[in-house]
Amino acid sequence: MSKSTGCCQGFLHYVFDYETPKTLIIPSIRVGFVFRFTQFLVLLYVVGYVCVVQKAYQETDSVISTVTTKVKGFAFTNISDMEPRFWDVVDYNIPPQGDGSFFVLTNVVMTPGQTQSRCAELPNPSTTCVDDCDCVEGYNDPRGNGTPQSQIHPHTPTPTCPSESRPLLAEAENFTVLIKNSITYPKFNFHKRNILSHINSTYLKRCEFNRKTDPDCPIFRLKHIVSEAGEDFQDMAVKGGVLGILIDWSCDLDWWARKCYPKYTFHRLDNKHPVNNVAPGYNFRFAKYYRTAEGEEVRTLIKAYGIRFDVIVFGTAGKFGIVPTIVNLGAALSFLSLVSEDVCCSDWFMLTCMKKRDLYSRQKSTYLVEESEVESVRHVLSYFAF
Amino acid sequence: MSKSTGCCQGFLHYVFDYETPKTLIIPSIRVGFVFRFTQFLVLLYVVGYVCVVQKAYQETDSVISTVTTKVKGFAFTNISDMEPRFWDVVDYNIPPQGDGSFFVLTNVVMTPGQTQSRCAELPNPSTTCVDDCDCVEGYNDPRGNGTPQSQIHPHTPTPTCPSESRPLLAEAENFTVLIKNSITYPKFNFHKRNILSHINSTYLKRCEFNRKTDPDCPIFRLKHIVSEAGEDFQDMAVKGGVLGILIDWSCDLDWWARKCYPKYTFHRLDNKHPVNNVAPGYNFRFAKYYRTAEGEEVRTLIKAYGIRFDVIVFGTAGKFGIVPTIVNLGAALSFLSLVSEDVCCSDWFMLTCMKKRDLYSRQKSTYLVEESEVESVRHVLSYFAF
Amino acid sequence: MSKSTGCCQGFLHYVFDYETPKTLIIPSIRVGFVFRFTQFLVLLYVVGYVCVVQKAYQETDSVISTVTTKVKGFAFTNISDMEPRFWDVVDYNIPPQGDGSFFVLTNVVMTPGQTQSRCAELPNPSTTCVDDCDCVEGYNDPRGNGTPQSQIHPHTPTPTCPSESRPLLAEAENFTVLIKNSITYPKFNFHKRNILSHINSTYLKRCEFNRKTDPDCPIFRLKHIVSEAGEDFQDMAVKGGVLGILIDWSCDLDWWARKCYPKYTFHRLDNKHPVNNVAPGYNFRFAKYYRTAEGEEVRTLIKAYGIRFDVIVFGTAGKFGIVPTIVNLGAALSFLSLVSEDVCCSDWFMLTCMKKRDLYSRQKSTYLVEESEVESVRHVLSYFAF
Repeated sequence: MSKSTGCCQGFLHYVFDYETPKTLIIPSIRVGFVFRFTQFLVLLYVVGYVCVVQKAYQETDSVISTVTTKVKGFAFTNISDMEPRFWDVVDYNIPPQGDGSFFVLTNVVMTPGQTQSRCAELPNPSTTCVDDCDCVEGYNDPRGNGTPQSQIHPHTPTPTCPSESRPLLAEAENFTVLIKNSITYPKFNFHKRNILSHINSTYLKRCEFNRKTDPDCPIFRLKHIVSEAGEDFQDMAVKGGVLGILIDWSCDLDWWARKCYPKYTFHRLDNKHPVNNVAPGYNFRFAKYYRTAEGEEVRTLIKAYGIRFDVIVFGTAGKFGIVPTIVNLGAALSFLSLVSEDVCCSDWFMLTCMKKRDLYSRQKSTYLVEESEVESVRHVLSYFAF
Repeated sequence: MSKSTGCCQGFLHYVFDYETPKTLIIPSIRVGFVFRFTQFLVLLYVVGYVCVVQKAYQETDSVISTVTTKVKGFAFTNISDMEPRFWDVVDYNIPPQGDGSFFVLTNVVMTPGQTQSRCAELPNPSTTCVDDCDCVEGYNDPRGNGTPQSQIHPHTPTPTCPSESRPLLAEAENFTVLIKNSITYPKFNFHKRNILSHINSTYLKRCEFNRKTDPDCPIFRLKHIVSEAGEDFQDMAVKGGVLGILIDWSCDLDWWARKCYPKYTFHRLDNKHPVNNVAPGYNFRFAKYYRTAEGEEVRTLIKAYGIRFDVIVFGTAGKFGIVPTIVNLGAALSFLSLVSEDVCCSDWFMLTCMKKRDLYSRQKSTYLVEESEVESVRHVLSYFAF
Repeated sequence: MSKSTGCCQGFLHYVFDYETPKTLIIPSIRVGFVFRFTQFLVLLYVVGYVCVVQKAYQETDSVISTVTTKVKGFAFTNISDMEPRFWDVVDYNIPPQGDGSFFVLTNVVMTPGQTQSRCAELPNPSTTCVDDCDCVEGYNDPRGNGTPQSQIHPHTPTPTCPSESRPLLAEAENFTVLIKNSITYPKFNFHKRNILSHINSTYLKRCEFNRKTDPDCPIFRLKHIVSEAGEDFQDMAVKGGVLGILIDWSCDLDWWARKCYPKYTFHRLDNKHPVNNVAPGYNFRFAKYYRTAEGEEVRTLIKAYGIRFDVIVFGTAGKFGIVPTIVNLGAALSFLSLVSEDVCCSDWFMLTCMKKRDLYSRQKSTYLVEESEVESVRHVLSYFAF
């Protein structure tokens, strides 16, 4: 019983004895100042950089976005090779659905009246280029192992080629596009649109995006987009290209900040570098299929040059979170206290720069020897006490 | 030699002397209890919140996804303006490819028989709206600097307009869509599909998604999707809209959890807010091109209203990783031990709330004075020893 | 005055007194070695794993990417059901725009001459399958509540069906695709293309991607892509499928590393698993619309089987950042020092394994008792001093 009591007491002592470091207080204003100054620097760093600049106390989430686009504008063409023609959005906007990537046709090579008729000759570069006005293709046309006995024979030996220097739809630079973009940050259950709440219908009917005067207007003139990307619309329109409309939705969702606005930037995404300039610009071929009265399928082959606009939405939202706060503050504090206070500055300063460094050192650290001083004291005392 | 030996020894001492903090053990059950209690709270926080709730011990990766969709269903229309017509998926599903964004046509304004014929009049709002039944466009039609002398002249002065209150393809609400979604977490080399392994062909032939009875079925009735998003299909179908099918693939890939199932939610993504209601709904124009027997190009202009369904896949997978574990545990522990144990609770409690606080304080901290007590003791002792 | 001076002095003492832990230095080479060894292990871990392997000192950013694709190649078909036909990119590449997801038609079921004519019968599985050669559809065709009185009546009772074992466009395996991919890491303002700077036009005209000989060539033979994904092109072409072209742009943007190259991998993304094989492969229906001389709309319904190639770009760039460095180093150091040095190894070793552990223990920790030894000493001394 008394043994178990002793055991129990030992256990209680083991569990509930509180061990706290012994400390030495040095009433030196110089050491204290160095200590407080380093503490201040650490605090300044933590508050200033980690919290204000990097916002490391925030949880983050990536944006989920949906985009609809609507191009508007008309163009009229009257060139020698082609009948006078009026172009509306149905003709030049491909695909028509208006999602985040839309194409505006600016130049065209048409080869009308192609039929599936038999030819004697095998396809070779000169024959396969019939739908092309320049025939400067970037890479080989692989034709595999089959030996084609038949090929598309164009009734019109030369396709309708526009001028090299000026695009067919030069007027396209004045087309406008309305971009509707809704975003969601699922982790924070936050939804927003790029048509901000202070924008009303009246304003939207007449506004046009301008970084200075109308930074919130979601209607963009194509020429303006291209020129903000550092390009010339007419140059780019001849051979086509890919232009990125980047919408940055970096948001600070804390209640004291509540900053969440779209920021638009424009970049040309394809290469226009003169070196390794393979398949420059942007073009693709498509066809309109007809039936003749005799039931034969005829197609008009269209090589469409133009500008593809890719609306790229990105961004990260941050909101105060207890875990990143503790993790980042804790880590910053502990690391910096380790580095600046204990190891480097205050202790080092105290033990090397002060006049009384020997006294401090002796007081701070006890050097263990076999017969330690305290032991000696004890001996002496026991000697006396006896 | 003896000097170098001394130097060497000094170096050895410098390198291998072990410096450990001196501690004071206080056998007070109250201080010990406060200490252990705060320790318990910290542990509870670290285990409970950081590990269980936030899973901060995991490395994360973002989802890579591919989606194919297939709409099924038929509709029959018989309105006064239009011939009776049977609609199948080829007619109403645009684009037909079935990728992550598909459009189901619900309402249509048709302007058949448009040709490129010359008109006297310049385009103005009244003439440019010929393909439109309401002509409430949200923003200006910029026409640039060119002065179009010719325009599309519709042979039919009034387009075929459906009723405003009820969409043409009201039956579209009963169409279904099969969504096939494969995801990859490249960092963990993990692949999965939304057709789970326990789903067999028989079940798939008859099932339909229902949050309660069939939560894993990848076939969705359009009406169900729209109503789960809090909208009425018939209302939405008149003017069109964008509806998001969000698939959340948040996964816990640790072997003890292995939870990785798609969670479907539905949200309307475009605005239906009455204020700033520019270009409400969702529509786009496209055309079907024909050739007359005389070779003239004729087109049927179609203004298509409908619902665009955007399948948006997102998610983050987490798996145990040694680096985040150490970083997060370490940071949490060190910060919280700093805050709770040393600074705030136990020491503070010991030095302010306990009766014997003066004793504790005297024992814990030594106040350095020029002629310290220990020095005095030494003097006294040396005096005696002498 | 003297009171305020005292108060002021108290405040100065409170602010500038420097409190430093008292330490005990143990000149034991064994304890010191254990201490230094654990320190070395911690350092090794921090430097080796956190810095070199995990690069935890880096800030990261997600990739923003744009893709354009261009398929090239011809095929010639001559089967009994169909007229001899020559296929070029306009015929088999759908949609034609060449964005990140493109479809190459490999097999086709054509139902020409469909008109909107009235039939007596209601649609049922046998009639709704007229455009299909196998009629093994994966799920119900919901037809809603409407009772269609009319339906599309095919003039040709049996569609043109290709063979089951061999795809129509078997030659498609020799088509090539040029993938142009530009990426941006907005946080680091870093732009790069997959056409690397050392690639010139001459090389691009003749090269073809090969993991060993031409790993940087952005032109891929379709057969090569499919075989690298572990599939057989001819097998896959019969029923279609989805193939992912994954481009990994994981980059290390630190100036001493500057590694940023695209890595291509290929995976089949749809399921070919024999169990739960609903709607196997990949196909969709579209139509070509014609007008007869009488003005009636006729369509050729095309059920297109083929391979959809999804170009999926992913990646994370890392660059040295001061905040993650401090956070990760700090956390790793503080946690590991907590675990290895103080708690586990050195102190534990010192207090349990050494012969002189009692001496160490007595020296390190003072056990507070009501009438502590020091108090007794004081008493004794005061006794003597008196």
